[in-house]
Amino acid sequence: MEEITGKWLLETVYPDLAVMLRIQQVLYSGKTEYQQVEVVESNLYGRSLVLDGKTQSTERDEHIYHQALVHPSMISHPNPVSVFIGGGGEGGTLREVLSHPSVQRAVMLDLDEQVVELCRQHLPNHHRGSFDDPRVQLLHQDAREYLNSPGEGFDVMVMDLVDPLEGGPAYLLYTREYYEIARSRLKEGGILVTQSGPAGLLSHEECFTTINRTLSATFAHCVCYQVHVPAFQTLWGFNIASDSPIPSLGAESVDELLAQRLGRELEFYDGETHLSMFNLPKFLRNGIAAETRVNLDESPVFMV
Amino acid sequence: MEEITGKWLLETVYPDLAVMLRIQQVLYSGKTEYQQVEVVESNLYGRSLVLDGKTQSTERDEHIYHQALVHPSMISHPNPVSVFIGGGGEGGTLREVLSHPSVQRAVMLDLDEQVVELCRQHLPNHHRGSFDDPRVQLLHQDAREYLNSPGEGFDVMVMDLVDPLEGGPAYLLYTREYYEIARSRLKEGGILVTQSGPAGLLSHEECFTTINRTLSATFAHCVCYQVHVPAFQTLWGFNIASDSPIPSLGAESVDELLAQRLGRELEFYDGETHLSMFNLPKFLRNGIAAETRVNLDESPVFMV
Amino acid sequence: MEEITGKWLLETVYPDLAVMLRIQQVLYSGKTEYQQVEVVESNLYGRSLVLDGKTQSTERDEHIYHQALVHPSMISHPNPVSVFIGGGGEGGTLREVLSHPSVQRAVMLDLDEQVVELCRQHLPNHHRGSFDDPRVQLLHQDAREYLNSPGEGFDVMVMDLVDPLEGGPAYLLYTREYYEIARSRLKEGGILVTQSGPAGLLSHEECFTTINRTLSATFAHCVCYQVHVPAFQTLWGFNIASDSPIPSLGAESVDELLAQRLGRELEFYDGETHLSMFNLPKFLRNGIAAETRVNLDESPVFMV
Amino acid sequence: MEEITGKWLLETVYPDLAVMLRIQQVLYSGKTEYQQVEVVESNLYGRSLVLDGKTQSTERDEHIYHQALVHPSMISHPNPVSVFIGGGGEGGTLREVLSHPSVQRAVMLDLDEQVVELCRQHLPNHHRGSFDDPRVQLLHQDAREYLNSPGEGFDVMVMDLVDPLEGGPAYLLYTREYYEIARSRLKEGGILVTQSGPAGLLSHEECFTTINRTLSATFAHCVCYQVHVPAFQTLWGFNIASDSPIPSLGAESVDELLAQRLGRELEFYDGETHLSMFNLPKFLRNGIAAETRVNLDESPVFMV
Repeated sequence: MEEITGKWLLETVYPDLAVMLRIQQVLYSGKTEYQQVEVVESNLYGRSLVLDGKTQSTERDEHIYHQALVHPSMISHPNPVSVFIGGGGEGGTLREVLSHPSVQRAVMLDLDEQVVELCRQHLPNHHRGSFDDPRVQLLHQDAREYLNSPGEGFDVMVMDLVDPLEGGPAYLLYTREYYEIARSRLKEGGILVTQSGPAGLLSHEECFTTINRTLSATFAHCVCYQVHVPAFQTLWGFNIASDSPIPSLGAESVDELLAQRLGRELEFYDGETHLSMFNLPKFLRNGIAAETRVNLDESPVFMV
Repeated sequence: MEEITGKWLLETVYPDLAVMLRIQQVLYSGKTEYQQVEVVESNLYGRSLVLDGKTQSTERDEHIYHQALVHPSMISHPNPVSVFIGGGGEGGTLREVLSHPSVQRAVMLDLDEQVVELCRQHLPNHHRGSFDDPRVQLLHQDAREYLNSPGEGFDVMVMDLVDPLEGGPAYLLYTREYYEIARSRLKEGGILVTQSGPAGLLSHEECFTTINRTLSATFAHCVCYQVHVPAFQTLWGFNIASDSPIPSLGAESVDELLAQRLGRELEFYDGETHLSMFNLPKFLRNGIAAETRVNLDESPVFMV
Repeated sequence: MEEITGKWLLETVYPDLAVMLRIQQVLYSGKTEYQQVEVVESNLYGRSLVLDGKTQSTERDEHIYHQALVHPSMISHPNPVSVFIGGGGEGGTLREVLSHPSVQRAVMLDLDEQVVELCRQHLPNHHRGSFDDPRVQLLHQDAREYLNSPGEGFDVMVMDLVDPLEGGPAYLLYTREYYEIARSRLKEGGILVTQSGPAGLLSHEECFTTINRTLSATFAHCVCYQVHVPAFQTLWGFNIASDSPIPSLGAESVDELLAQRLGRELEFYDGETHLSMFNLPKFLRNGIAAETRVNLDESPVFMV
Repeated sequence: MEEITGKWLLETVYPDLAVMLRIQQVLYSGKTEYQQVEVVESNLYGRSLVLDGKTQSTERDEHIYHQALVHPSMISHPNPVSVFIGGGGEGGTLREVLSHPSVQRAVMLDLDEQVVELCRQHLPNHHRGSFDDPRVQLLHQDAREYLNSPGEGFDVMVMDLVDPLEGGPAYLLYTREYYEIARSRLKEGGILVTQSGPAGLLSHEECFTTINRTLSATFAHCVCYQVHVPAFQTLWGFNIASDSPIPSLGAESVDELLAQRLGRELEFYDGETHLSMFNLPKFLRNGIAAETRVNLDESPVFMV
């Protein structure tokens, strides 16, 4: 039994379904140049970052999302030295990237400097000092503009962007044109991974399958996977794309690669977890097979 | 954007988290001898059965839960002829069991006759006429009493019970004593499977891991798995137990067995789905390894 | 302490404020030709009629609203014989009008026949058989059209209409043009009263003050009053208008008139209650004095 | 139409009814020695003080509550020089008391020093510097203990206490024993007033009528009144008690007294407002007439 009196954060998950999270504190609530930002604290999730009403990550389970986003691509690349991160204001993606000793340079570009500052201040358990790592270059500008200018190449590019909401700051970072630009900055053998929105029975057609289709239309190879993220209330999807073949890794290979590369175990991601992520429920395979929409600048698909 | 005005079903998922489902109709709301019952209709989920405030299954996604509950055990048994179902008032479990032509007899025992009647009337897309199958015997009595009396043996026993809530009608159907009784009614090579409550990062220790531990203390073999059920907002856990070895099936084996046995494809369950269910995220393996609580009649573990 | 689990009706009251009512049953939910209709049952309020998401009246407190709407005008008229009721589908207004033995004819016109049928069926404690009184003529057509056609005159006209919501069926029944039409059907000494929306500190400028201003611009005399209706969460406003002077009644006069006319006491309305309704809090007097908006067909004021 | 996404304060009003207020900021949330405290900010109400989950007052409408609480007693006393305030942490009651130039001394006693400090810091528009007035003595101790010790007498005593909630800090400040103690500190002709909880149709029997009955059993004279406070969602009750006759004031007398005493108009309270407050709806008169419960230390009545 749960008492109703109190302070709650309400968040729409699907049309006709919302989630109520009892919160203790609102550490920050305000508007930046680009979006509405909330940092709230709850007993259930610890500190959460909420952008435009959508929970981005929570202290309690962000390791699931960030490890699922980062490590499959990192270990699929033979020697990731330079990494690009698009978005990722909380610093959790950066933290996981930097945990790979092979990484000598991480360029993190998040449009919204204020969000990064707020995370730096209020979410220490997310970033754990990553922003101060000397390997990091932190930029605040438009990702397309930056990537479209002449510049260095990357071994791995991690797109940790807000969902492609209509009117939001990121929907043009999920289109074929954007992926062409990103592709031009990948080194030989380079790999791109992007968070790809919800992948549940009721939601995988919102944007997950179109992102897969769009990447498949841009790159020679594209593989998708999913994981359950508690704070997102559903399965969450990811897509890896590359012009080089993406290895299909068994559980032992994953465990060996993690041991070699990191020299320690991760809290969430390991070999068997990898299999739980890359073996897809049938509806997802069907949804991907049936998808025909390619996101274009002139006709982007918006998340509901 | 979602309008607030309207009729909503609120349901607590974890302490400090609740879900709001916009509903269109309340087809039934009342108390039976054993529990509070609601049958509601929503645009998102179609018709849902709600017992004591907990959504049991919905028209939209019940196939995930019921196929995940039934088929792994059925195909793990070489030739399931007689099946016992504990609970399962909606008839979805019965429907999946009867889809196996090898089944000649299905005894379904649900304590609450009124619930079964309400499901029969209001949830035709759940049971799809299964209750009228001549192979079915439908009973309404206490499961322990029934199983503890001398009687026929079963190849597969499927426990589709309500969660072990304090004060609820089922918490004594998750104890070692109950499993001993059930075991005595399994034929040689027989298999028992039970729904085992939530299996998410934040909830797997509520009852999932203790049910695993309890079955492991009763049977020679016990294997657990999980699946994301949208209407439950989280991963859902299951445990299979047997005194005979439980085969570890690959994707092809599953697909072949389903083809042989059923002669058709299932909407949700197939070989790759099987792998996504039986490969566990690390936290679940850790949780099971660390669990020491065995449910006993005198000290049952209650779900939060 | 109040448990969160259950079925709730949510209703917006002001911008940024909503009310949650725990409901037991949804007796009806559907769309008529004109509006969304719900009949729900709650332990707190009994049966409620909800039109387009707005609670119209509840079994528990409808007597406050209906007695406040009807009787001040009825006793202000020397001998009300013929009465017109606009709207009032629940039959509560009709019931109060018919309680005056002087009434020989009551024409009730509610556009939405289906709503009246639903009320007849589901709200017996509202109408208490009033629709079957031989003095009643029940019509279902457009009020403006009906009143604008040649026809009989009325001593009292009671406008028990849904609020003037944008897109709703009634916003053209609060304009100067409409009041001119109604006025043409009043007999000598006739009185019109209309429900006039919320009259609380935060809401009286939504439509209450404009309706007062509009009636004052149409009739020689206009008096307003208010009462707290629990199910509306706030004070509720009414306006009485006439071309004859509207008497200012003391408590004794009201009690005497009720005794003479009805021969019995009313549950809610009496002399002292009358004073509590006609003595206005200062903010209402200020709001009325400051109001300049007259509702015109071409520029109606909509309730928020 | 109101979007659901966002931060909301939920508060139970009656059993089965709650109010949702969209909030922008949580300025403070924590536990003092005595109670749970929240200071929140909303677009609708500005800053609100919430104690143990109950809204105490809001920036937007606190003037209604505080002026209704203070002025009727103040002008009913011929010359209020010394005033005692029990509770009233926000400083709004103090502010209204100090607006009477006749007042030379105001002893304000609020048990919870931390609450007063929080109000001082976060609610400047409530107290408007009142705490710094040289006429004020601010105490933080138990009201019964303080009043039960020998000490000065008061012309007016204003009890602005939290509701008599079971387990709350104030339920022993509504009993006959407490009123006897308070009475012993009233000067000749002195008047006591207390906030008395909700006075709506559905709530007046929670504590309003028993406080009236208890004061009537203690003092020679007792008069009650009510006012609609928007943030409380209902009518709110007050009781004035004295051993001297309490004058029944007409509208003109109130206006004259306010003009003489204050030399200015008040935002909410005036002569006609006074009549709207002191003329009671019939159900309140009936409820008071029927009430037999006297609050005693050994059997206090708790608010639901």
